[in-house]
Order: sequence, then C-alpha cells, then structure tokens
Amino acid sequence: MNYNQLIEQIKSKKSFLCVGLDSDISKIPNHLHKFSSPVFEFNKQIIEATAEYTLAYKPNLAFYESRGLEGWKDLKDTINYIKSNYPEIFIIADAKRGDIGNTSALYAKAFFENMNVDALTIAPYMGKDSVSPFLTYSNKWVILLALTSNKGADDFQYFSENGTKLFEKVLTQSQEWANKEQMMYVVGATRAEMLSDIRKIIPQHFLLVPGVGAQGGSLKEVTKYGMNDNCGLIVNSSRGIIFANSGETFASTAREKAKEMQQEMQQLLVQKGII
Amino acid sequence: MNYNQLIEQIKSKKSFLCVGLDSDISKIPNHLHKFSSPVFEFNKQIIEATAEYTLAYKPNLAFYESRGLEGWKDLKDTINYIKSNYPEIFIIADAKRGDIGNTSALYAKAFFENMNVDALTIAPYMGKDSVSPFLTYSNKWVILLALTSNKGADDFQYFSENGTKLFEKVLTQSQEWANKEQMMYVVGATRAEMLSDIRKIIPQHFLLVPGVGAQGGSLKEVTKYGMNDNCGLIVNSSRGIIFANSGETFASTAREKAKEMQQEMQQLLVQKGII
Repeated sequence: MNYNQLIEQIKSKKSFLCVGLDSDISKIPNHLHKFSSPVFEFNKQIIEATAEYTLAYKPNLAFYESRGLEGWKDLKDTINYIKSNYPEIFIIADAKRGDIGNTSALYAKAFFENMNVDALTIAPYMGKDSVSPFLTYSNKWVILLALTSNKGADDFQYFSENGTKLFEKVLTQSQEWANKEQMMYVVGATRAEMLSDIRKIIPQHFLLVPGVGAQGGSLKEVTKYGMNDNCGLIVNSSRGIIFANSGETFASTAREKAKEMQQEMQQLLVQKGII
Repeated sequence: MNYNQLIEQIKSKKSFLCVGLDSDISKIPNHLHKFSSPVFEFNKQIIEATAEYTLAYKPNLAFYESRGLEGWKDLKDTINYIKSNYPEIFIIADAKRGDIGNTSALYAKAFFENMNVDALTIAPYMGKDSVSPFLTYSNKWVILLALTSNKGADDFQYFSENGTKLFEKVLTQSQEWANKEQMMYVVGATRAEMLSDIRKIIPQHFLLVPGVGAQGGSLKEVTKYGMNDNCGLIVNSSRGIIFANSGETFASTAREKAKEMQQEMQQLLVQKGII
C-alpha cells in the first residue's frame, strides 16, 4: 500500500485507527481455550468484530515469539486471515528490529516476503545500513522509532547536541534515507506536546502513535498537535480495545470500543476538513 | 552462568571465542540439503567440530526467523543440542530486541525461559524500562548495544552532549540498571581504537566484540585496548569460521579456523598473565 492509497483508506473508512494485536494468551477469554489455536481464534474474532472501523492491525511480535513455534504459527495465520478477508487493511509487524546490513536484509525478507506485512517497526540505534535493506521493497514501509511512549524514552531520546535532541536527529537524518512514501515514525501519544515541533521537521510523513488508552495518551491532544492535511496519523490502541472485556462477549465489546474511537476520529477528520 | 563461572570457563578453555551461528541456508554446503533439517544438521556438525575451542555460541536470530516456522524449530533444536551436549558453553541469542516494559517481559520469557539461552543482545534506544524486565532473571545476561561494528554506527552513536557521546551515555547510564554480573556491552572490533576510552567507563564488564574477520576487525587490536585482568572479552567470528569452506569438509575447516583463533587467544591470555 502506498502513501496515497493509505490516505484514500483513511477517507473511505473515516478512521485512522490501528488495533494492536497484543494477544497475550494469559489474558484471552477462558472459553477460547477449547479451540486448538486459542490465540488465532481470539484474533480472528477480534478482527471480524473491528475490521469495519479499523485502518490497520499491528501484531506485536513479542506476544507471538514468547510462545515459540505455536505463537509463530498463530502470527502467520492471523496475517493470512487479514490478507484474505480484509485486503484493504494495512498490517504492521511491531518488531522493533535493526541489525547490520546482511542481517537486516534477512529480517526484511522474513517480514516483507514470507509474512507479507506492509510495514515493520525498526529501532534506529545502528544507523543507515541497518535500515536500508528494508527500503528495497516497493510499497513496503519502515516505521522508525523516534520518540517512544514509555518512561525510558527520557533516558536517551532527549540526549541533545547543540540544541538538537536525539529523536530530532533521527527524524532529520533518516529523511536522507527515504521519503514519506516509505518511511513513517513512531511518536508516542504520551508525548503529544512534542508533536508540533516534530511536525516542523516532518510535515508530511505519517506517524504511528501508540500510547492512547492504557498508557494514558489522549486522541484529541495527538490530533491537535500531530494531524496534517492528509491526516498523517495512525493511532494505535491495543489493550483498550482487545481486552476491554475478557468474558464471552469480548468481541462485541471490542467492536464497541473500536467504533467509539472511529467515531471520535471521524469527527476530528471532519473538523480538519479532510473528509 | 555467572561472572566468575565465565572467567573460569575462559581459563579452562584458554579461549574467549564466540562462534556466530549466522547459518544462512543459501550458504550451507549442498550435500546437507538431503537432511530433513539442513540448517540444524549444519549447526550440529559445526558445533561438534568447534566446541573444543569455543567459549560461546551466538545464533543470530534473523537467519532463523527469516525461514519462519522451520527456522524457529532449527534454532530451538540447535540450542537444545548445545545445552545437552556442551552444558558448559555460553549461549547468546543475538536478537537486538527492546520494547516497552510489558513487551520486553515477554521477550525475556521467550529467550530466558522457553529457549533457555544465557544472554540476549538488546538495543538501548527505548531506555531503562525496556531493559529492566530482562534483569529479573538470575544468571542471565543483557548484552546492550553500545558501539556497533557497522558503518551506520556513525549516524547516532557518536552524537554528543557536552563532550559525551551517545554510546558513552549508554555505558554510563545503564550501569545504574545492573552491574557487571548481569550486563555486558557490544563493542565492534572495527572500533578497537575506542576501547581504551570505553575501558575507563566500564573497567570490569564483559564486552561482546563482533566484527573480527569478515568485517575487518583485528583480534590483536581488540585485545590490546579492550582486555582487562579477567579477560573481559568475548570475541565473535561468524562467517570467517562457519563458511570458511562450503564443501563436504566444511566442518573440519571450521574446526581449523576456530583452533587458529583459540591458539591466538591462548597466546594473548598468557601474555596478559591470565592463564
């Protein structure tokens, strides 16, 4: 999916919601454990229930990797299920990979060829040659960590040289590697007040914004400071949607929560004159 | 394995060699493709041939992940094989993970419980709470990226605030999170000239040093600037050992290459008065 197609999808769905599939097996409803693949069944029902309101799904790799072969299979089945049933939905593998060139090339193959996801989150610490191999795929996206939503973001991301913070350096320097057609950035919703400054550096790029909901970020604040004329935002909610209800009616509750967010997003898109 | 046990192993084996199991399926000898799991067979033969000279093995996760379920199974079988046959050998999962707290906790579970490796490489960009979950396991190690061996290390790792470079800040700040009993650092052999300065910040910690061999780093230089009174080095070679010969005699060539490095290391340990 390319930049313009993503904008079209946002307008068509009136939503810039990403649902994070942080599908922790210890938190899924009890009654699903009778299925041979409880996590895949959970994901399938969550996806069926929320797809109408959703621009993107973001499986967080840790929740699958931590379960070894079975988890890996659930991840693959989930991606295939989305691709087959909702081909218009953008899929982000939240993997935060990044390694020397020959190794990153293999991660790119793993995620962009074998898994066939649309985008992958990447950690910037190792610099250009750790990111470049991901940029050789057309219509695939690198989502580079810039300013993350966690407390530890303060440890290094605000480190500054001559008034430029590290995350700003990441934004500036990485623009030499790829343009807005291939690169997005992670900016945490808990850092909404920084979004105005970030938009001065990257006015047109998409931002993937985690941290709304359970982590305390506000959709209104994120939109106020971060939305551009094309929307330019993909806002993620994980636990606030998928684990809003852990009983038998989990899917319909997830649908309600996703719908609430979509409705709020629709209003914000209208206010901004985008739809 | 704890700090003192690691030192004992170095003295006993007269080696601080780590063999990188970057077992690229496209590079393994042709005759192995008749086996049901060619990569596992390759690893098994490499391990049998080199274990005598080897302190540690370091499977690079990308080479396994990129092959999906089969790769994941090969990785698990390889780790089990080492654990069963060479329980004294240190196993490093080169994964370069790092995510928000609840996610890092799952990666820790994946690698330290399910896979039962001794150490994991971690990217520092997301700060303390992305690293802490890995530190709740006793006798398990975090190996934090400090100064990597690739060219892209120049992009952000030398970024400096009041004369302190980012990688130095990583070294200093992370000492507040864990001591030398749980934390090591990656410093690339291609940056050997920086090792004297690094040793001023972390005189006692172990360093995992990639980049000798195919990437151009020199074992002598690394030892000159980086070795401390307990050795304090784990030097990795991957392609230079495992792919030195791609014919039927690959394992005996790998053995020779590992032996050469061990002999050089033994000499350096003697010169330094460690053995």
